[in-house]
Amino acid sequence: MEQDTICALATPSGSGAIAVIRVSGNKSLEITDKIFKSGRNDSLKAAEGYSVRYGTIFNEEEVIDQVLITVFRSPASYTGEDSVEISCHCSPFIVKEILSLLVKNGSRMALAGEFTQRAFLNGKMDLAQAEAVADLIASETASAHRVALSQMRGGFSSELSSMRASLLEIVALMELELDFSEEEVEFADRKHLRSLLDETLAHIGELISGFKLGNVIKNGIPVAIAGATNTGKSTLLNAILGEERAIVSPIHGTTRDFIEDTVNIDGTLFRFIDTAGIRKTHETLENIGIERTFEKIRQATVVLLMLDATRPDNFDDSINTLTLKVNQSQQKVIVLINKCDLVLDLPKSGKETVSVKDTILGEDEISGRDAMSGKYAIEVDDIDAILGKYVENVREYAASAGLSPTAIIPISAGKRLGLDSIKKTLHSICSIGVTNSNSVLVTNLRHFEALKNAHSALTRVAEGLESTLPTDLLTQDLREALHHLGTITGAITTDEVLGEIFGRFCIGK
Amino acid sequence: MEQDTICALATPSGSGAIAVIRVSGNKSLEITDKIFKSGRNDSLKAAEGYSVRYGTIFNEEEVIDQVLITVFRSPASYTGEDSVEISCHCSPFIVKEILSLLVKNGSRMALAGEFTQRAFLNGKMDLAQAEAVADLIASETASAHRVALSQMRGGFSSELSSMRASLLEIVALMELELDFSEEEVEFADRKHLRSLLDETLAHIGELISGFKLGNVIKNGIPVAIAGATNTGKSTLLNAILGEERAIVSPIHGTTRDFIEDTVNIDGTLFRFIDTAGIRKTHETLENIGIERTFEKIRQATVVLLMLDATRPDNFDDSINTLTLKVNQSQQKVIVLINKCDLVLDLPKSGKETVSVKDTILGEDEISGRDAMSGKYAIEVDDIDAILGKYVENVREYAASAGLSPTAIIPISAGKRLGLDSIKKTLHSICSIGVTNSNSVLVTNLRHFEALKNAHSALTRVAEGLESTLPTDLLTQDLREALHHLGTITGAITTDEVLGEIFGRFCIGK
Repeated sequence: MEQDTICALATPSGSGAIAVIRVSGNKSLEITDKIFKSGRNDSLKAAEGYSVRYGTIFNEEEVIDQVLITVFRSPASYTGEDSVEISCHCSPFIVKEILSLLVKNGSRMALAGEFTQRAFLNGKMDLAQAEAVADLIASETASAHRVALSQMRGGFSSELSSMRASLLEIVALMELELDFSEEEVEFADRKHLRSLLDETLAHIGELISGFKLGNVIKNGIPVAIAGATNTGKSTLLNAILGEERAIVSPIHGTTRDFIEDTVNIDGTLFRFIDTAGIRKTHETLENIGIERTFEKIRQATVVLLMLDATRPDNFDDSINTLTLKVNQSQQKVIVLINKCDLVLDLPKSGKETVSVKDTILGEDEISGRDAMSGKYAIEVDDIDAILGKYVENVREYAASAGLSPTAIIPISAGKRLGLDSIKKTLHSICSIGVTNSNSVLVTNLRHFEALKNAHSALTRVAEGLESTLPTDLLTQDLREALHHLGTITGAITTDEVLGEIFGRFCIGK
Repeated sequence: MEQDTICALATPSGSGAIAVIRVSGNKSLEITDKIFKSGRNDSLKAAEGYSVRYGTIFNEEEVIDQVLITVFRSPASYTGEDSVEISCHCSPFIVKEILSLLVKNGSRMALAGEFTQRAFLNGKMDLAQAEAVADLIASETASAHRVALSQMRGGFSSELSSMRASLLEIVALMELELDFSEEEVEFADRKHLRSLLDETLAHIGELISGFKLGNVIKNGIPVAIAGATNTGKSTLLNAILGEERAIVSPIHGTTRDFIEDTVNIDGTLFRFIDTAGIRKTHETLENIGIERTFEKIRQATVVLLMLDATRPDNFDDSINTLTLKVNQSQQKVIVLINKCDLVLDLPKSGKETVSVKDTILGEDEISGRDAMSGKYAIEVDDIDAILGKYVENVREYAASAGLSPTAIIPISAGKRLGLDSIKKTLHSICSIGVTNSNSVLVTNLRHFEALKNAHSALTRVAEGLESTLPTDLLTQDLREALHHLGTITGAITTDEVLGEIFGRFCIGK
């Protein structure tokens, strides 16, 4: 396939020591040669694949930078084409100059995902592997990394290919039978067919049911924060996310308002989702905002129900409303009694902080000792006693509503008290251990849909075998299943699907 | 010199296709070998310099990533030591894992600038060249890039080395004379000495006087925004910087409050500096904030004096105060009449915009036509007439205060009117063309100080020659000049100076 030559910055933009520019296409060596001179003074075209040269990038007479150039020869490159990687000093000015020079000399700027798309088109990887490259780069936890890497290395692809081989065997046998249909011979051993089919169906079924796990590994376990308005839901979300952000990346240290974002808690990814305030159930639903809230609550694996300690008269309603919306056999509920600092009368400021490890608030620190008198404004025993009553109160309401919360935790989102307890509870009830690297997990919605379609087509085949449907109808369904499986690896694909998939990549990938 | 092995991420962190990790030190191949397996199954130690291998990074049995490894052999590497560059998928998780593995196997995380420091210590580059690496990466304009690149390639270093050679020749001749001093012979031809000295002095003098240009090329031409409080100085700064930021880097697109930052206007770097509001001169200076403002005004090449069109009674005071503080033979003043939209009664919103190319506001667009009636709320002629009066007014005040402003521009910082006029005026009065690549420009304050010290020592020598000072006193001053020149390239240096220089680098450089 004749392709033009593309170029792009492959490393992130920003501050660093070096930047790498990728050039790929059958003219990549020729184009780079026009702007590069090494001490050896011979053409890059003479360079072997996997070799590096040191030299200078020129714009006419003017020196742009001293660079290292790595040459890759088709087909032993990422894209499968002749390629060059230019490692230059990491200055936005230099990168811009080199890219302009490459374009001026016959290259063009790559589209998003175009390098990986070429790798696919040149048979260097299938679609599922190409999609795993993007997942690999985005992975934040060891589990997500392992799943993406296994897919990129072809684990999923080889399972698919063995399933397709089985199905093709069945189709071949059946079509043979079809050719001789006038003679009414059954070439295909129906029992053998049936067992091959059952195996494949079971396998696809496993992959489909693994999607839920794969999806939470990739996108995080959904945790909805529910509660009446003004109970401090957003404050809690910002406290949890802000804290983690500050650790993960100093760049994101500034306070932002999060509506939904992921947090890696001890290796498990959680996706926290803020919801609009829920209302009493006997009220008419006023707007779709509330319906959306209920939708998010239903989709969550864990629901954090926020109560406001200063408004205990609302506990009952909030608990009743939520209880009606959750499916307790599938979902976990943690009740958080927020604003506990307000009912504790904690000293406001100018006090020393004291660790309250032993209180119900957990291992956070609260401001508790009067700096002048050296006395605690409030005794640790008192804290336990006061908050213990709130917890007891909530437990009773929950019991009468029929709700069995996994935990009831007094917190103060504003003062960041009790956050550790929340995280520990979340981790203990639904942590995902690092998954076994040998198991294939489906993480991609596109693959999931294709597997479901293949599964239902094969189910029709199985039913048809029972009811002794004509062979030509069976093979039609079999071909449909093959088609759906083929779309996953790209054995069968369209330009539209490719555009959709690679358009989501970064430029330079 | 025996050194331990260091590692660091060399590319920026962020979103991209690939990341490069640098490893340098005499164990770099051995350490990388422990975590890397290629298809060839032989040791990296067998790899030639400048060759690339494709393979897999393992943590024990677990696959971490598929990577490209480039091997560099001492002394043909950036640091001069055996080095490895690991090109992996650009995932923060993968980068962290690979760095941990390298550390676990005997490497350590590099300090800021440590790779370049090793390059210096191993004689791969001198100090001036090492400092130019940082300048090169930071350069934002073609001029800054050219100056830094020329310095990195050794242009400055070779000039310094030829000057040092001349001075050493003089010293040698003089010391020979000193050895035979009892015989009262003059070996050194004083006339030759004098001419060598004059040449060197002239050369150093040129370098010193080039520093001002070099400094503005590197750091930007200082433009102070002065004016009474609430005239809109910060609004203007944010408007100018925000606009440019949005073009330069989408990451910085969010509105920030700038106090000082640079803008590249048509290839010339300007450094805009906000100042506190200035007061009437007859008031007692209340605080050092005002003194600082005057200091900034005195240091600026251009002063933008902001007036508030809605408070014309303050024009006189502001102009008088500023006139006393600027040195008109050295500095340029541009008067900006801000908030012009308020005196023009421009329609507030819901109107179509119309280009007012021909008015005094310049080529910006203002909201001027009533969408309903199709008529302009204000005629272009009226705009010119009204604003023309303001400009005339300011011109008269300036004349009577003795100020000759380069331009008087009516603007609206809030509505972003007139910004183009400001930029064009700035560019026309002090643009720096792309400097000749052959000329050496001093951009570094450390080098500037060293050159000044060398210059004054040599001036003492020249004076000594005139007054026939004893030879041993002359050679002492000559040696001092040699010392100062030597500190620039690092021929003479201390650990403290090295720490100071390389500590300012990024990690990975």
